[in-house]
Amino acid sequence: MKKVINSTEAVVRELCGGMVKAYPDLISLDEDHSIISRKELNVNKVSLISGGGSGHEPAHAGFVGKGMLDAAVCGDVFASPSIMQVYHAILQTASDKGTLLIIKNYTGDMLNFEGAAAMAIEDDGVRIESVCVNDDVAITDIAERRGVAGTLFVHKIAGALAEEGASLQEVKAVAEKVIKSIRTMGFALTSCTVPARGNPTFDLGEGEIEIGVGIHGEAGIFRREMATASVIAQEIVDRIVTDLPYNADDEVALLVNGLGGTPIQELFILNNEVEKILRRRDVRVYKTMVGNYMTSIDMAGASVTLLKLDGELKRLLDAPADTIAWKTCPKG
Amino acid sequence: MKKVINSTEAVVRELCGGMVKAYPDLISLDEDHSIISRKELNVNKVSLISGGGSGHEPAHAGFVGKGMLDAAVCGDVFASPSIMQVYHAILQTASDKGTLLIIKNYTGDMLNFEGAAAMAIEDDGVRIESVCVNDDVAITDIAERRGVAGTLFVHKIAGALAEEGASLQEVKAVAEKVIKSIRTMGFALTSCTVPARGNPTFDLGEGEIEIGVGIHGEAGIFRREMATASVIAQEIVDRIVTDLPYNADDEVALLVNGLGGTPIQELFILNNEVEKILRRRDVRVYKTMVGNYMTSIDMAGASVTLLKLDGELKRLLDAPADTIAWKTCPKG
Repeated sequence: MKKVINSTEAVVRELCGGMVKAYPDLISLDEDHSIISRKELNVNKVSLISGGGSGHEPAHAGFVGKGMLDAAVCGDVFASPSIMQVYHAILQTASDKGTLLIIKNYTGDMLNFEGAAAMAIEDDGVRIESVCVNDDVAITDIAERRGVAGTLFVHKIAGALAEEGASLQEVKAVAEKVIKSIRTMGFALTSCTVPARGNPTFDLGEGEIEIGVGIHGEAGIFRREMATASVIAQEIVDRIVTDLPYNADDEVALLVNGLGGTPIQELFILNNEVEKILRRRDVRVYKTMVGNYMTSIDMAGASVTLLKLDGELKRLLDAPADTIAWKTCPKG
Repeated sequence: MKKVINSTEAVVRELCGGMVKAYPDLISLDEDHSIISRKELNVNKVSLISGGGSGHEPAHAGFVGKGMLDAAVCGDVFASPSIMQVYHAILQTASDKGTLLIIKNYTGDMLNFEGAAAMAIEDDGVRIESVCVNDDVAITDIAERRGVAGTLFVHKIAGALAEEGASLQEVKAVAEKVIKSIRTMGFALTSCTVPARGNPTFDLGEGEIEIGVGIHGEAGIFRREMATASVIAQEIVDRIVTDLPYNADDEVALLVNGLGGTPIQELFILNNEVEKILRRRDVRVYKTMVGNYMTSIDMAGASVTLLKLDGELKRLLDAPADTIAWKTCPKG
């Protein structure tokens, strides 16, 4: 394992430190609890908190800021933050309108975010709701579906509605609408290497590709021989499109997300193929994003996310956002 | 070699296609000449053209748009675009105020950009000036210094002044001021793999790191045993700081740039170390950017760039930009 780190124990602390030093105008860091929060909190809007294990950078701290999250709680690499970490994030960002927790569907995250919520409700009288993101179509059983790259559309759209001054129930409702409308699937050309483990989580031969991987080095649902970008896109997109399903004339937002080790040129080549498939199906792409948004440390591979849009979601998607990894300038 | 591509011949064409499909509101593509140009050209401002070999994505096409470049000419991977490609870009973006070519200091790029300029001046009467970026301190001889990640500060600052309506001479002058004030140095944990070649450009052992690499798989100036982020940062930053030199109380912009295969978490950890070293030297960081901006395909590694600022450069650095890879929202 060759990594630009000082020690495996210091990874999360030092990466959080490096983020806040780079963007001190956008975020603040509570070093004791690895909480990255918005520089200027607003007690008159619903607070949005997300987070989870580290290793998905720029997620989630890269989405803290105006129009998106109020705080991201950073667990150890691929490990849920503790109940106390989340609890502190809730107290630090408490607002008069209440707090929405956006949780990716993993057992540890669900337990600890919900546990922290119970504590803050009972001990501190904070109003809290939560939503659970489960966009990974690689898993057949919907209850078991993991939350992956589609989560950032929840951050963006719920964040925009919160910024407009909506109530906790309204923000929760739009987050749930997004969750119902997103589907993601990923593939890997290599495993990732968790720093503390020091070697790849799974082995993949030079001629193989893993379809349906998670973002924590979970192996995929099947393995096939390496293929062209066109074939890979077809494998992935067909499963996504038929799952919701996304139909002809539906308008969608499309995210082609790198998993950390894939060059940006390959992400654009993949997008070129994804767009062709969607065009053949008459699914209309309203907005596309291509880049590293929800990574799996250094995994070579990518995921594709579709979000079915309506007028409300388009408006909120286009609303201003000012974070490290997602900037939408105000119109005008 | 495992890559998400269809064929090595189609890499540039398809990556350009994937870019314009993703961001049709920002850029247009001339498929015949692999020129990516700004969606809405303005003949009342100086035109800025850059480019070079592909493989550095998001550079340079990711910096085409309001406040930065008018066109990026995309050569084959790590190969200069042809004279005819650059010539077409000049004609397509010709403005009443003239054109500035921003060329990275490589023999092929210099020859072909200058050759195209000569043709457009002689045959078409276009007013053209050019600047040559040579920020790589790994090379001792200044005339031989390569243009690397610092180039994007030239795009940003010259682009902002052009947007304000400045003359060709003024835009050239500020570009030259930036070029005099930027220094970069990079290191690699792995080589890159050029698609058409199919295997790594150089070999690097599991316990080794290459210091002073270029962005085309050029080997570095020396090799050493793998070290901590702290030691690597010291190796790089000391050489940069003493080169200009950057002195106590200087204000700088800092770019911690990933070379394509390095996880974003490691870039932030590196930034954490770079910032400490600059603080010890009392060099003041005015603005930091951390991410993949000028890559070397899939190379694991990073570069650090410093730009010494004055009031004019700060103002232009903060001016609005609307491109794929650099967005600065108008203050409001």
